[in-house]
Amino acid sequence: MWLQKELMLKPRPRGFHLVTDEVLSELPELRDFKIGMMNIFILHTSASLTINENADPSVRHDFAAHFDRSVPENQPYYQHQDEGPDDMPAHLKSSLLGCSLDIPISAGRLRMGTWQGIYLCEHRNHGGSRRLVVTIQGETG
Amino acid sequence: MWLQKELMLKPRPRGFHLVTDEVLSELPELRDFKIGMMNIFILHTSASLTINENADPSVRHDFAAHFDRSVPENQPYYQHQDEGPDDMPAHLKSSLLGCSLDIPISAGRLRMGTWQGIYLCEHRNHGGSRRLVVTIQGETG
Amino acid sequence: MWLQKELMLKPRPRGFHLVTDEVLSELPELRDFKIGMMNIFILHTSASLTINENADPSVRHDFAAHFDRSVPENQPYYQHQDEGPDDMPAHLKSSLLGCSLDIPISAGRLRMGTWQGIYLCEHRNHGGSRRLVVTIQGETG
Repeated sequence: MWLQKELMLKPRPRGFHLVTDEVLSELPELRDFKIGMMNIFILHTSASLTINENADPSVRHDFAAHFDRSVPENQPYYQHQDEGPDDMPAHLKSSLLGCSLDIPISAGRLRMGTWQGIYLCEHRNHGGSRRLVVTIQGETG
Repeated sequence: MWLQKELMLKPRPRGFHLVTDEVLSELPELRDFKIGMMNIFILHTSASLTINENADPSVRHDFAAHFDRSVPENQPYYQHQDEGPDDMPAHLKSSLLGCSLDIPISAGRLRMGTWQGIYLCEHRNHGGSRRLVVTIQGETG
Repeated sequence: MWLQKELMLKPRPRGFHLVTDEVLSELPELRDFKIGMMNIFILHTSASLTINENADPSVRHDFAAHFDRSVPENQPYYQHQDEGPDDMPAHLKSSLLGCSLDIPISAGRLRMGTWQGIYLCEHRNHGGSRRLVVTIQGETG
């Protein structure tokens, strides 16, 4: 049994954002899958997806602080600067964190840990809406 | 054909640990799959999973040395420090390395390269046992 | 419906290389899948796979420049140096970027964004040919 649909996440400022509820609200079909896998794929190269702590907003603050330092803007060796100083760091952060998540499904729900949530990692200053493709496969009934 | 089970890895000290044999010893059913995929998902936000060199323990030493330097403790911009100096770096390392692996299956075995093995990346000083969800799907017979 | 095959990528110099066309040219069967997932798994621990910008070669240049700085050679804390100064950084870069991609399939094509392409990340100075295992599953007809 396969299900595939495209979702549009609302625009968010640069930073790390917990989007578990927004994603799941678009996927009522998930409850029909007894066992399976869900892939979430972001159709962009300057934003990414990751799974991390879902409770304390300071974790998302610290993610932004860390990645802005470890992948700095305005480095003299950057050649790709056409869209501004946030352009090339966004591409690098995107590949460090990844554009695709695979999450197991059990009994109609995502089988994540108690403290895990889905982050949209918005690396552009003005990234706009972000499009996701969600693909679910598994056993129903 | 689907199979899903939860595994508990024994506690390990902070660092990078080869766990291929421990994981496979819990999955005798793998030999029934002619072709398929195995997902391993760690239910935590302060440990991660990766695939790397399975022979020389110095590689795992150097992983720890590198990540402890590239994601340092006690940075002045960290706000999330409640559980100690290893807390926030553990979350960051977890997302850099990832919480989920997808490995192809061929003829009842993981189809990895000769030198590839599965690492548990334990980022906390006292992380305790770590829980994994393994999901296998494929053709049997 | 499952399909699995091994591909050999031609040797490339150290750096980041767009290989979407080379990979797809070996997968004519993809057009038969209406909906599904494709996994690409690289059978090595010193090269990796990622998805990023497919148009401007300067992005790939900047990837090499960034990763050579953030994962430098010849660090005093490296113990694993047997195969030369590019050896240990290659292992680290491999895990930072990952050895496995999962890409959705829709209507016989990879469902990637307009600007997304598949990169082979070659981290060794003389890595030679690189072997991939591609696993496709989905609905056909």
